[in-house]
Amino acid sequence: MRPVAILGIGQTVIDEHWDLSLRELAGEAALAAIHDSGVEHPEGLFVGNMLSPLIGGQNQLGAFIADWVGMWRAEAVKIEAACGSGAAAFRAGLVSVASGEMESALVVGVEKMTDKAGHDVTAALATAADADYEVEEGVSFVGLNALVMRRYMHEFGWKHADFAPFSINAHANAIHNPHARLHEIITLEQFEKSSMIATPINLLDASPVGDGAAAAVIVPAEKVASLPGRPRILVAGSASATDTIAVHSRKDPLFLSAAYASAKRAFEMAGVGANDIDVFELHDAFSIMSALSLEACGFAERGQGPRLGLDDEILVTGRIPICTRGGLKARGHPVGATGMYQIVEVVQQLRGECGPTQVEGAKIGMAQNIGGSGATILTHILRTL
Amino acid sequence: MRPVAILGIGQTVIDEHWDLSLRELAGEAALAAIHDSGVEHPEGLFVGNMLSPLIGGQNQLGAFIADWVGMWRAEAVKIEAACGSGAAAFRAGLVSVASGEMESALVVGVEKMTDKAGHDVTAALATAADADYEVEEGVSFVGLNALVMRRYMHEFGWKHADFAPFSINAHANAIHNPHARLHEIITLEQFEKSSMIATPINLLDASPVGDGAAAAVIVPAEKVASLPGRPRILVAGSASATDTIAVHSRKDPLFLSAAYASAKRAFEMAGVGANDIDVFELHDAFSIMSALSLEACGFAERGQGPRLGLDDEILVTGRIPICTRGGLKARGHPVGATGMYQIVEVVQQLRGECGPTQVEGAKIGMAQNIGGSGATILTHILRTL
Repeated sequence: MRPVAILGIGQTVIDEHWDLSLRELAGEAALAAIHDSGVEHPEGLFVGNMLSPLIGGQNQLGAFIADWVGMWRAEAVKIEAACGSGAAAFRAGLVSVASGEMESALVVGVEKMTDKAGHDVTAALATAADADYEVEEGVSFVGLNALVMRRYMHEFGWKHADFAPFSINAHANAIHNPHARLHEIITLEQFEKSSMIATPINLLDASPVGDGAAAAVIVPAEKVASLPGRPRILVAGSASATDTIAVHSRKDPLFLSAAYASAKRAFEMAGVGANDIDVFELHDAFSIMSALSLEACGFAERGQGPRLGLDDEILVTGRIPICTRGGLKARGHPVGATGMYQIVEVVQQLRGECGPTQVEGAKIGMAQNIGGSGATILTHILRTL
Repeated sequence: MRPVAILGIGQTVIDEHWDLSLRELAGEAALAAIHDSGVEHPEGLFVGNMLSPLIGGQNQLGAFIADWVGMWRAEAVKIEAACGSGAAAFRAGLVSVASGEMESALVVGVEKMTDKAGHDVTAALATAADADYEVEEGVSFVGLNALVMRRYMHEFGWKHADFAPFSINAHANAIHNPHARLHEIITLEQFEKSSMIATPINLLDASPVGDGAAAAVIVPAEKVASLPGRPRILVAGSASATDTIAVHSRKDPLFLSAAYASAKRAFEMAGVGANDIDVFELHDAFSIMSALSLEACGFAERGQGPRLGLDDEILVTGRIPICTRGGLKARGHPVGATGMYQIVEVVQQLRGECGPTQVEGAKIGMAQNIGGSGATILTHILRTL
């Protein structure tokens, strides 16, 4: 494969966009990325989406969005890997460009979740889990994560408040991100008193649903190496791995083996290690997932993820800054779009465009997107050229 | 991209498999392909599926099926392009191997449609069309195709019976395919008297739904060139193109411009033309689509597709044999799996394994898979090494 680079990015505000259709949301992010890149006619389109067939009655989003953004006759396809759909689409696009099959690819992650009432969305999200052996037993998606968190607290001796720094950090960073869904500082007291959803997960452990789209344009690295202007971003590492779909089938349900495997491969491909990462946009759908992701990728010892929050190591000024734009927790989690928001945010960090939450001198960034309760995990490492 | 080859194939019988789950169906085809290929541990899995979230409540089929077939930690993802999902997954797999990103890929197309009553399936299939501008107006998927067929008959002066040879040929060939859903010879009289679905499309113009899975293992061509035994199959051409999602947005709704574009690119890549194709597995979801596909790919003049049926040119012994294993019409159309059935069937023809419907001396075969009413179209050309 030849090296590839990200030439342009775009994103919408995450909100309850009742006035915008799925195609309008996707189009806004896509056209922003196209404009930012200067590539007027990307050759291929890769769309990440999970819920549109269930919530919008719309399949075939590849052709659907290609049509809307004026990519008539271009190759276009949708990739789905539950909440990991965004990064999975990004990887499909980058492999297509890296292979030489095309000279440019537009990747769009898009999700519209708020047009239906809560029950429908909860049922739709549960399609990420095992329909026959998990959902059939009555467990919801948040319920599965609650079981994992409860076991983790028991196994490693943490109390609920120890997870608070993950959410407090995410909310504090989101204040400075105009695209974030939530702009509200939260305190430890609020975290502890928040409404329970599925014990021990309360409202402030959980990321909010939302409508949004994020996009990027990928081109061969050789095309951007000599361009003047702002830093150009190389995709230095890309890997995808899977684990059992049902959490109960895992030898160790407290270890994200697909995070471990995909991070290991991405590190090797990029020729870097955990210590080299300046900023890490991880998949904090629930606070427990922050801990598990940090551990599986080698940023913390097994069972010690919450330590990084308690010791301020996850802050923008810390050893391994996470959720610098608000993370899933406060930027919001439009599921099939999330992976692309992470990529876009890492690009913003490497370009130095993050204002008060800019990680000083960031040169190497990592994004990790998780589908289901750890069943599909994609890790990408970006670096300045 | 390096050249790639198909080393193994597998498929299930298409039927109402109420006794088999989605994972069991996919597993049967996948393990058959793995066994046929001799590649014990494919590095990646690409799943083509359209309806599982809607009918089975199951998303994330990449991890879901990787788990079931023992590909723990392997990269796995689902690709969806409505009824073109199977070939779209195949193309994703082949690009991944061709890029050098992996040394082997398993591709599985799978669909389970018969567990729900007819109304649900009709609604689910309509997600291939434009939800806002077609489905919202009350048109079903068969309704859209009926409008196209009516216009075609009016424009070019054909009567309904002129389409009969497409269905008669498909049914005659399916008799000899043990994996086909329907094993029933049909006559012109039966075709003319068949129950109307959406005028002018009657029951014998339309392909049946079904449950089934088909799979293939892709490897670099250099790996198979020197292997002894049966003919090895090179993927000589692969292309995907799109058209507007809504039929009414097209300048010419009677021309499949995405079929034209993808066939043109696949022909160029393979260095062949329409005259070189020995066998063509096309997407006869409705008889009108056979005519449109033959025309867009250069096998017939505009408006003259039915001529090929009336003149016996589509027979196994004709100039351009189509639907040699029964086509969508009689082999069956488990939507997300169909594209992989077509690939598997072309491989069978090139291996000379088709018994009474073997195309004598077939060396170059073509498969064309269509998503929606022509919105996503993929063309693949296979040839013996």
